[in-house]
Amino acid sequence: MADPEILKTIAEATRLREGPAGVEAILRAVYRSGSLRLQDVAREARLPMPIATAVRRELEKAGLLERKQGLALSPEGRDFVERELGLGITIDVTCPACAGHGVVIPADFQAQVGRLAAIIAQAPSVDVTLDQAPCTPETSLLRALLMLQAGALEGRRVLLLGDDDSVSLAIGLVGQALGKADLTRGVVVVDADERRLAFLRENAAREGIALRTLHHDLRQPLPAELQGAFDTIETDPPYTLEGAKLFLTRGREALAGDGLCYFSFAQWPPRQMLALQRVFLDLGLAVQTIRPGFNAYAGATVLGNVGQLIELAAAGPAAAALPAWQGPLYTAEINPRIRAYVCTSCGREAVLGRGSTPETIEALKDQGCANCGGHSFRRKTGG
Amino acid sequence: MADPEILKTIAEATRLREGPAGVEAILRAVYRSGSLRLQDVAREARLPMPIATAVRRELEKAGLLERKQGLALSPEGRDFVERELGLGITIDVTCPACAGHGVVIPADFQAQVGRLAAIIAQAPSVDVTLDQAPCTPETSLLRALLMLQAGALEGRRVLLLGDDDSVSLAIGLVGQALGKADLTRGVVVVDADERRLAFLRENAAREGIALRTLHHDLRQPLPAELQGAFDTIETDPPYTLEGAKLFLTRGREALAGDGLCYFSFAQWPPRQMLALQRVFLDLGLAVQTIRPGFNAYAGATVLGNVGQLIELAAAGPAAAALPAWQGPLYTAEINPRIRAYVCTSCGREAVLGRGSTPETIEALKDQGCANCGGHSFRRKTGG
Repeated sequence: MADPEILKTIAEATRLREGPAGVEAILRAVYRSGSLRLQDVAREARLPMPIATAVRRELEKAGLLERKQGLALSPEGRDFVERELGLGITIDVTCPACAGHGVVIPADFQAQVGRLAAIIAQAPSVDVTLDQAPCTPETSLLRALLMLQAGALEGRRVLLLGDDDSVSLAIGLVGQALGKADLTRGVVVVDADERRLAFLRENAAREGIALRTLHHDLRQPLPAELQGAFDTIETDPPYTLEGAKLFLTRGREALAGDGLCYFSFAQWPPRQMLALQRVFLDLGLAVQTIRPGFNAYAGATVLGNVGQLIELAAAGPAAAALPAWQGPLYTAEINPRIRAYVCTSCGREAVLGRGSTPETIEALKDQGCANCGGHSFRRKTGG
Repeated sequence: MADPEILKTIAEATRLREGPAGVEAILRAVYRSGSLRLQDVAREARLPMPIATAVRRELEKAGLLERKQGLALSPEGRDFVERELGLGITIDVTCPACAGHGVVIPADFQAQVGRLAAIIAQAPSVDVTLDQAPCTPETSLLRALLMLQAGALEGRRVLLLGDDDSVSLAIGLVGQALGKADLTRGVVVVDADERRLAFLRENAAREGIALRTLHHDLRQPLPAELQGAFDTIETDPPYTLEGAKLFLTRGREALAGDGLCYFSFAQWPPRQMLALQRVFLDLGLAVQTIRPGFNAYAGATVLGNVGQLIELAAAGPAAAALPAWQGPLYTAEINPRIRAYVCTSCGREAVLGRGSTPETIEALKDQGCANCGGHSFRRKTGG
């Protein structure tokens, strides 16, 4: 039988911030579902993919997980989980109708999902250096409907800080479905990527959606005309603490007074969430709702493809203005790493996070070469 | 047409902490639903009942609401809402299958709801001086199932800090339904009310549920044997900031390391939520999920009968121990007020918050005398 200390050993070997509880969360998730894809396990255990990959490898070495398609407990692993962790129950009380989101897209709006999907399919390629990772059309539309229901759209001035999720178009399509082109009192999109703004403008024009875009790097303060000029803000910023802080600070500056903020983010482990919550508090943003797993993304494998939606309410006076931001911001700036690899079997090049290639070398080794299926890679030098 | 400044005027007249946005939230809720009970409006607008009552009265005076059963907009009110607030949409994207909770009681557990309801019906009378306000059997069972799914029960040592919600029995019934009497590694209930502990013990014994109870006032530090001895804590404390702080601090002291905390509370407006979130942060408790409206209560009319469930994860070292608590704690200590009234028509006495009598004089006037239906009351003196 496995050593009861094994969880601690693996947590230390993988430098797991969550400690043994993180390893246990993975075993728990696998036990519950029988067999799972790694990204489902990572999401359930709230661990980033590279970390989940590393823990998986250690669990395989320890003989608790079997090496096969998906994650599966070995007989020894099953015994360990039942005896040492005291688990024996597989139950799921998640609402099947809404997948636990608590909200659903009404039948009247299904046509808009198709419309938005067709538009998004034509979007410019994703710029990973800006941490772009578009959510699915369903997520985008559901976010707009949630905002509508909360009173954050009707008669409101709405600012989107970055919009690789095409939420501006989703809001417009919702207004059209309701026969109210003037649903809001104006939607403004600020984004650092002019290609994306052009895409939004073109499609808004084609669909008859009113939209104003502004090419602006949020590291710089908002133009004076946008400060204190909005009732609602929405953002899905870079998944770094700096990204959250910068985008939320600019958003807070944009609010006229009290107002609502729809904030999408990675599902960080508790210790990092505490740091994020300190940012909320410093900005006078009260958490109203947290919906884990609300946002589904097309390509963000590092995050296990889902993220949380946090509804914040600004309360009290706005924080002091933030001058221009000098520090690192995007993931690649904060966690710099070699991104280009070559398969040692066939020589095919793979760039992490581009196309269908995973974000990390660990996940790439796991997935195998797109050309030959090989699992060995070397860094591409001089690239 | 109504003065656009009316929202501000009413907010000032009722000293509404939320400002004009709070008045607007009430109009918005009424507009959305057509006609609503006051407690539904209060819940939707996230205002306490006495405040909602006062605002309602001002809106009636201003001619925006009609005086009738439930709340209804006058033609002038409807015009104001559509023109001044820009509202025109009535949409509800709440999942009908789970009422927005994201979780449902599976069919296998329906029998347990009935069983728990029968037990709770025999519970001792509520002690309002301890802010007791039992939740419904459905809520109690759903809370237990949610804890189970999150991994907070199986193989865990569980501490309930106060249990007027009978969650200890719900956990036991869930274990029985699963054929696992030893679902947890022990459930301990600490409560200041010995009557309630006796009730829980008797019913646990009758149902064959293992349960340990401890009569203890949480204003005093936990007994040494309970400190650092649990993996999961659950509490539905007095709805004061002091109550939240004290119960959570004791709970944090009880956790062995990182662990989960299920925290039920009133749905406070943003400014008060900020203060609550500072308590979380100071205790190293990371908010994982906030589910507004998750908890339904039988008698807490002040709160509009529903409350939020907040899932917290302890991260990092426990805070310094809190010595004995000297200050006020329960609602009546913090908001002292005359509680006994007499109907001026028939002389029937009504004590606020007792039996079916509402928590506030405003709500009582609204509801009318239980004997004669009169709407005028005077304070009972010398009582």
